[in-house]
Amino acid sequence: MGEKFETLQARLTDLASLGQAIAVLDWDHQVNMPPGGVQARAAQVSLLARLQHEMATSDEMGRLLEAAESEMAGIDYDSDAAGLLRAARFDYDQETRFPTAFVEQMSRLTTEAHEIWAKARANKDFASFAPTLEKLMELARQGAEYLGYEDHPYDALLNRYERGMTAARVKEIFDGHKPQLVELIAAIGEVEGRVSDALLHQNFEVDRQREFSLWAARAIGYDFTRGRLDVAVHPFCTSFSRGDVRMTTRYYDDFFNPAFFGVLHEAGHGLYEQGIGEGIASTILGSGTSLGVHESQSRMWENIVGRSREFWQFALPKAKELFPAQFGNASVEDIFKAANRVERQFIRVEADEATYNLHIMLRFEIEVGLLEGSIRVADLPQVWNARFEEYLGLTPPDDAEGVLQDVHWSAGLIGYFPTYALGNLLSVQYFNKALEQHPNLRAEFAQGKFDTLLNWLITNIHQHGRKFTSEELTQRITGTGIDSAPYIRYLQGKFKDVYGL
Amino acid sequence: MGEKFETLQARLTDLASLGQAIAVLDWDHQVNMPPGGVQARAAQVSLLARLQHEMATSDEMGRLLEAAESEMAGIDYDSDAAGLLRAARFDYDQETRFPTAFVEQMSRLTTEAHEIWAKARANKDFASFAPTLEKLMELARQGAEYLGYEDHPYDALLNRYERGMTAARVKEIFDGHKPQLVELIAAIGEVEGRVSDALLHQNFEVDRQREFSLWAARAIGYDFTRGRLDVAVHPFCTSFSRGDVRMTTRYYDDFFNPAFFGVLHEAGHGLYEQGIGEGIASTILGSGTSLGVHESQSRMWENIVGRSREFWQFALPKAKELFPAQFGNASVEDIFKAANRVERQFIRVEADEATYNLHIMLRFEIEVGLLEGSIRVADLPQVWNARFEEYLGLTPPDDAEGVLQDVHWSAGLIGYFPTYALGNLLSVQYFNKALEQHPNLRAEFAQGKFDTLLNWLITNIHQHGRKFTSEELTQRITGTGIDSAPYIRYLQGKFKDVYGL
Repeated sequence: MGEKFETLQARLTDLASLGQAIAVLDWDHQVNMPPGGVQARAAQVSLLARLQHEMATSDEMGRLLEAAESEMAGIDYDSDAAGLLRAARFDYDQETRFPTAFVEQMSRLTTEAHEIWAKARANKDFASFAPTLEKLMELARQGAEYLGYEDHPYDALLNRYERGMTAARVKEIFDGHKPQLVELIAAIGEVEGRVSDALLHQNFEVDRQREFSLWAARAIGYDFTRGRLDVAVHPFCTSFSRGDVRMTTRYYDDFFNPAFFGVLHEAGHGLYEQGIGEGIASTILGSGTSLGVHESQSRMWENIVGRSREFWQFALPKAKELFPAQFGNASVEDIFKAANRVERQFIRVEADEATYNLHIMLRFEIEVGLLEGSIRVADLPQVWNARFEEYLGLTPPDDAEGVLQDVHWSAGLIGYFPTYALGNLLSVQYFNKALEQHPNLRAEFAQGKFDTLLNWLITNIHQHGRKFTSEELTQRITGTGIDSAPYIRYLQGKFKDVYGL
Repeated sequence: MGEKFETLQARLTDLASLGQAIAVLDWDHQVNMPPGGVQARAAQVSLLARLQHEMATSDEMGRLLEAAESEMAGIDYDSDAAGLLRAARFDYDQETRFPTAFVEQMSRLTTEAHEIWAKARANKDFASFAPTLEKLMELARQGAEYLGYEDHPYDALLNRYERGMTAARVKEIFDGHKPQLVELIAAIGEVEGRVSDALLHQNFEVDRQREFSLWAARAIGYDFTRGRLDVAVHPFCTSFSRGDVRMTTRYYDDFFNPAFFGVLHEAGHGLYEQGIGEGIASTILGSGTSLGVHESQSRMWENIVGRSREFWQFALPKAKELFPAQFGNASVEDIFKAANRVERQFIRVEADEATYNLHIMLRFEIEVGLLEGSIRVADLPQVWNARFEEYLGLTPPDDAEGVLQDVHWSAGLIGYFPTYALGNLLSVQYFNKALEQHPNLRAEFAQGKFDTLLNWLITNIHQHGRKFTSEELTQRITGTGIDSAPYIRYLQGKFKDVYGL
């Protein structure tokens, strides 16, 4: 390695460490912090974020990066060093495009906006959030201009979360499977009485839910010498290094799904972070490459694995042991069907596999419309409700169950939602490829054997961290780009099975 | 306030925030971190420590400090601003006296030393730690030279933990009460059969110990909206702001004392940090002023309050409720005596009030001897054991129960031990003063009323944070300096009572 490159890498490793320290403070905030700690914690995090921004955008960093790029010109594209330089260049360009005043304005506005949104949601009162959302959209438009784009300002924002993806491409992908989704849901709606999930709406002791969740996470390969499971109001997974990857969940004593499938979901994120190659783990390449690819991992373990018949062939005996009264008389078929019940509902985070992407499409269309001005903030509740009725056949009773439900916009996250839907599509594309190479995969699940799949994911996805973009990874794995057809086929097959369509 | 002063204060607040962030990372390390996190956590902490050191010793900081000092010359000594400038000057001078190479050498050596010491202790093998201790003492001597001193190199080290205290003064204080302690312990030894603590060596369910500890901490005024209690191998208390002060403890299911009195001890530290004045809380004045004063608070709540007859008049009913089988037949006298049983033993951290300071005197004499060369490292086990026999009438069976028992030297903490003993002396001096002003204090404890004492401590000690040094504080409160006579009178009174001497 060249000397400039080594120096650059050391600086970038510091930057990664600083990011990890912020993540620890944030995890502690959400998991442990007593209420009295809020103010000081905000000061601690904002100081570290400022130091991080200064380090990341310093002239020295710019010079080092340029020097390292010319020093290393011509090295193998697939090498770690080349990947590091690409990621460093992307980060540096992104970070330096926003003027400091803009970053501070954004930070102030989102801090205020969070409270205003939370209150508006509690009061089911969109009007009180509307002026703030106007400002947030104005800043998003400004931000897009700073970042630059070719076709559409939305591309600049989306690119931060899913590199290389564009609004036009997302529209094409979404339009390519929306009609089939609407049709599938309508077909299920006609026979919805065939599947009940009463089995999962019983009383489940929280300690036992935790025990079962830990057991399942361990079974699929989660390494608890390099992780933990805690409780948080809004479940998430976070990584402080490949050796310390933490999940959170929340327990309901009258509903089995949120904690159990939530842990499988977060474990999917966690396995990705635990699977980063050791050689790049402490560098800026040491985390998942995009939100979409991250979501593909969580959705694969939650849905394709965790909601499969074979998974429950393996897991039901343990479930019966822990919950004899609840599951004692249940068959694998019972729990497989209950876990896959489709129910049109208002809240995205509670949506099932069949309806989930429609929730996202709605948001994507609104974000693009707001950004280009074809939708006005004031009209949002009407637009939301009309489109929700069109896609899902239901009208939200109020804005808390409609346009105010998600935290994202108040946090300035415009362009983030599509990654959830892209993750669903990728999960099936990747899984199909693994299945092609290991046709026994599903039979293995029934035996409680998940390492063939996990090792395939580590080899093809996890180990690379951020070395390749989402697009590059998907090309390498599938030979094609992202595609909705496999996802639709997967859903049609599954719900034909579950609902006897 | 002057403009330079404001700028300085903002920089110092950043410095305080950085210290708090490091404390969070350290707390998480000791309380939550999975084993896989060790390496990355070390990198995170060492980066933040480096940034802290750079910020604290920068030329800019030196210039700002000088400018603020002249700008604010002549302001009231007792003002927060004057206190801040004094603390900032002390910190800056301390931090800048060590050359960077020395700091790095020290950091490397102590990291290595910890492992070598832990292994030596596990193997009861002092010889394998001796060469490392030689190096540590050599660095301590160098450090003392960098820091500067008038009479004795030990003064320079001690001054870091207990500002203004000197080896000569400690010797005088220790010599002033050692004979009485030895005599007291001998007298108790002759009637040791009069008091049993079998009551406290029973089976105590851990959940209930936790509940009782939380109840007691709350009763004495610990605010759990600004704190937590967790489990750690080596119990400690840490503060991330006056709004987030956390204690840890460890539970033994067959011995009541470590968790319960441990929590009262840590709560004493915690009350100090929770009591810092709001106006200085986010500044560098926002923590306890010295280790000795800190220890005076923990020892006061643990021993003077928690091991008093009146405390148990209040607490026994609750103890009986939680532990009916263990305490159902116990009287206040039974538990008061059991909690105050004196037992000569080898391990400092398990020592009772009567013997504790002797453990410290031994360490102080050895540290001074090692530093000036009158004691050789190689002779330590012999010196330790002979002196232990002299003071406590027992000979340690091996080095793990003797000279290798404490972590301090391996961490480079030379000059730290005396603060424990000074804390014991101060606890009685301060308490006596509170009692003089509030003669009903003890009667109030019996009613579960602790706020008169707590408010007195907040007003006279806690609120000031680091504004006054230990010496200044003690002068202000007692009108005299630190003094061992009150402590000896307190012990003589208590053990006359407990043992019927």
